[in-house]
Amino acid sequence: MPILLDSSQAPTLSELIKQANQVGLKYSFSAPELAESLLIQGIGSLANATTAEISFLSNPRLVSELSCTKAAAVILEPKTWEGLQAAKKPEFVAVVCDNPYALYALIAQWFDNQRISTIKNTIHSTAIIDPNAKIGANVSIGPYVVIESGVSIASGTTIGAHCTIGPNSQIGSNCTFHSNVTIYHNVQIGDRTILHSGSVIGADGFGFAPDPRVKHQAWVKIAQLGGVKIGNDVEIGANTTIDRGALDNTIIGDGVKLDNQIMIGHNATIGDHTAMAACVGVAGSTNIGKHCTIGGAAMLSGHLTLANNVHISGGTAVTSNITEPGRYTGVFPQAQHKDWQRNAAVISQLSTIRKRLRKLEGKS
Amino acid sequence: MPILLDSSQAPTLSELIKQANQVGLKYSFSAPELAESLLIQGIGSLANATTAEISFLSNPRLVSELSCTKAAAVILEPKTWEGLQAAKKPEFVAVVCDNPYALYALIAQWFDNQRISTIKNTIHSTAIIDPNAKIGANVSIGPYVVIESGVSIASGTTIGAHCTIGPNSQIGSNCTFHSNVTIYHNVQIGDRTILHSGSVIGADGFGFAPDPRVKHQAWVKIAQLGGVKIGNDVEIGANTTIDRGALDNTIIGDGVKLDNQIMIGHNATIGDHTAMAACVGVAGSTNIGKHCTIGGAAMLSGHLTLANNVHISGGTAVTSNITEPGRYTGVFPQAQHKDWQRNAAVISQLSTIRKRLRKLEGKS
Amino acid sequence: MPILLDSSQAPTLSELIKQANQVGLKYSFSAPELAESLLIQGIGSLANATTAEISFLSNPRLVSELSCTKAAAVILEPKTWEGLQAAKKPEFVAVVCDNPYALYALIAQWFDNQRISTIKNTIHSTAIIDPNAKIGANVSIGPYVVIESGVSIASGTTIGAHCTIGPNSQIGSNCTFHSNVTIYHNVQIGDRTILHSGSVIGADGFGFAPDPRVKHQAWVKIAQLGGVKIGNDVEIGANTTIDRGALDNTIIGDGVKLDNQIMIGHNATIGDHTAMAACVGVAGSTNIGKHCTIGGAAMLSGHLTLANNVHISGGTAVTSNITEPGRYTGVFPQAQHKDWQRNAAVISQLSTIRKRLRKLEGKS
Repeated sequence: MPILLDSSQAPTLSELIKQANQVGLKYSFSAPELAESLLIQGIGSLANATTAEISFLSNPRLVSELSCTKAAAVILEPKTWEGLQAAKKPEFVAVVCDNPYALYALIAQWFDNQRISTIKNTIHSTAIIDPNAKIGANVSIGPYVVIESGVSIASGTTIGAHCTIGPNSQIGSNCTFHSNVTIYHNVQIGDRTILHSGSVIGADGFGFAPDPRVKHQAWVKIAQLGGVKIGNDVEIGANTTIDRGALDNTIIGDGVKLDNQIMIGHNATIGDHTAMAACVGVAGSTNIGKHCTIGGAAMLSGHLTLANNVHISGGTAVTSNITEPGRYTGVFPQAQHKDWQRNAAVISQLSTIRKRLRKLEGKS
Repeated sequence: MPILLDSSQAPTLSELIKQANQVGLKYSFSAPELAESLLIQGIGSLANATTAEISFLSNPRLVSELSCTKAAAVILEPKTWEGLQAAKKPEFVAVVCDNPYALYALIAQWFDNQRISTIKNTIHSTAIIDPNAKIGANVSIGPYVVIESGVSIASGTTIGAHCTIGPNSQIGSNCTFHSNVTIYHNVQIGDRTILHSGSVIGADGFGFAPDPRVKHQAWVKIAQLGGVKIGNDVEIGANTTIDRGALDNTIIGDGVKLDNQIMIGHNATIGDHTAMAACVGVAGSTNIGKHCTIGGAAMLSGHLTLANNVHISGGTAVTSNITEPGRYTGVFPQAQHKDWQRNAAVISQLSTIRKRLRKLEGKS
Repeated sequence: MPILLDSSQAPTLSELIKQANQVGLKYSFSAPELAESLLIQGIGSLANATTAEISFLSNPRLVSELSCTKAAAVILEPKTWEGLQAAKKPEFVAVVCDNPYALYALIAQWFDNQRISTIKNTIHSTAIIDPNAKIGANVSIGPYVVIESGVSIASGTTIGAHCTIGPNSQIGSNCTFHSNVTIYHNVQIGDRTILHSGSVIGADGFGFAPDPRVKHQAWVKIAQLGGVKIGNDVEIGANTTIDRGALDNTIIGDGVKLDNQIMIGHNATIGDHTAMAACVGVAGSTNIGKHCTIGGAAMLSGHLTLANNVHISGGTAVTSNITEPGRYTGVFPQAQHKDWQRNAAVISQLSTIRKRLRKLEGKS
């Protein structure tokens, strides 16, 4: 059910594409005069867009879909557009741009803003806000929110229903907290940061000291006295957890993007603009560089260092430092179960097999 | 602490077993006249059932437990019952049925319904329901629930405490939402669907466009304009997350069963009656067939297609399409740590070992 | 942002170190007279502690940091202290103790208690407590908590905002539930247990019976009639889920420590003092011994038995019983992607390689 604006609210193609100016993207229209009058009510995939919608082509493998799309306008690369002109002329207005995917991103944001602009900047009567909390201008606070003493929330931030913000935590400006986000005490969050439902920031790191002389419990809890510091322009997915540090802070850099169900252990540091797909686990005190990507369900052991621009494949267990940029993988290949059984049985003999091979080589 | 009904509320064995008729299961009693009078207060395992309870045997390996169970009645297969008659006659009443496990399932449901029937169909005074939401007949809404504009909830559905349902989402009839479920906007959920606590449906898919020309952030957010469509008779476990689609919907088919802590990425499609154990991650745009089973902690990469009747073993990383039904596995076998170290070290030499072997073969 | 007490509230070093007496740790000061007057306002890492703080050295690899720390006092081992005396005399007061890490743990707890002692033992006016619930002395209940019929909460327990406790659940004394914990019905929790935000205890185990004759759904739900029983001194991390048993209970022993995002399946049993790092999945009916440690993102199949004192490395899939204590591992080693591709391709030929090797050996 994608958004479809009423035609009275729909922008012209020309107005809509002005989103490109935000980031200096250059573009041209195949039919400039039409772009001034054509109304665009929504955005859809090439396969599903209607005649009132715009679409885009960023993956060259989908070029064949251009011939059957019903979209009124399509964003595409100069090279693609040249190829099309040589062939039969398409019926849509082409928006020729050297980064169709980025332009699509900006336009999708614009349509999403039409939806969320209907939320009013108010503080719901059921929100419980400690008198010692500081709430900035144009902050929206939903039903049943609990904000404790010493909290500050900067201007323009939206806090969804059922969120809880613990003592002395500081939230930046223009953030969006969806419903049911939990922030413990002494957490610091930058500007324009988005937190999805079920995320928990600042729970205790997992720290215990073994001591045989303790009677009531074999593990002594290490109180976690550090905090969490999250930068600007971060996005944190649903049910993701980021633990507070033992003595110093857990640190999430600017522009970091974390998908759902990720776990960041205490005292980890995630460098600026690093992105992680869902279900990743980062153990305590691991230091990940900038501009890294971590594939889904990858696992990073504790106390490691990863350089900048390291790319970890999904499902890989990282158990030692990575000092050079590049792509790293460690996944047992999937196979039909019987084949796997046969081959996996040899894994336990690999060192023997190497020895036997050496022996044969010595003989031959 | 299993449920034990008061003897005044307990059904006779005969009445209880009538649950089988719901799905056409056939059965007979070893002592039909006793079945009319024997009261059954609860259901227990063969080892723990009391003389007031019924039990069942579905796993042939547990047949020896029949001789010492205290259960008043036991559901078992015709073949098992014949074996027992040849041996010493048991003291329990046998319920002979060719699918003891399914009959147990129905009876356990019956007992569970006795417990939950005490919940009243009311709307709690603290629930905040937008005037533009449509609430059907016999809907129960718990304390501190927040229901936004344009939501519809069909008859007989129960919404637990602290649930949040975002604008324009549609919930079917006879659903059960346990406490603390979060539904974002424009999500569609079918009839008789069960959602457990902490589940989050419709959070933004993980979509970002890299653009070096953007100054404030290296990643441009792709607004997620699609929705989530969930079929009938689905069950979704605690803290499971299902993201909304980028342009089209993420789709969960009828009868799909998802365990806890599962992550379904945006635009994934899960076919009817597919079941997934806990901690599975399904990356974006992956299309899983019908009647598949996915073992716990398996990971599926994005943009894959899996055929119907595919069975993935727990812990397997699936990184390529699977076009044939069958069981697939890819797990590094566990071993004592020293053995693992010795053998894992050879993994990095496997292609060399193959070469050396070829060389030897050429010589010999 | 670690805690720094006002100097008027700060204890002397001598008073602070008396925490050691709780568990019989022995210690001495390098400058006993100074210990009586030196005020300690906080605790920090060797690198970051200020002149008003205490620090500790438990990892011998960090011994070089002793020469540049600004800490007023440092906890260290006798051996380390002897080494230092031979070298240049340090400026800090040494607290010589044969278990610096345990002493640090106790002192960090003491500082943390200064922070949390400001929370008042009150029942918030918005908490909804069924008249048939029993609330002990000095219980603190936060805003918007929902406590259902038949619940009992023993003395000294703190229930954070937005927690929900289902019918007939029993909570011990001196527990701490952080915000947004969900407890289903018939769950039993021991004394001094800590639950972090987003944890869900007692959701339905994942049980379905396949039955082709059922029309509306291919899977019949097995109602989960058992409960969950959690011992004393347990800690459960953020967004961790523990499912209720099918007929009997899921059992978590005394002193068990579970990190975030862990999933414990129905009817599993976790032995006393076992600790699990984040993202572990334990499938149904698996029985883990006492004093085990399970590394992050490890996965345990269902119906297994693990002995006492078993240690599983992070990322390992355990698919068969482990009867002997020791460390077990099963992780595909990470490598540069191209190397992985080359070597992983040989995995599917391992049984053939073994055969070819045998053939060569037979010939030579």
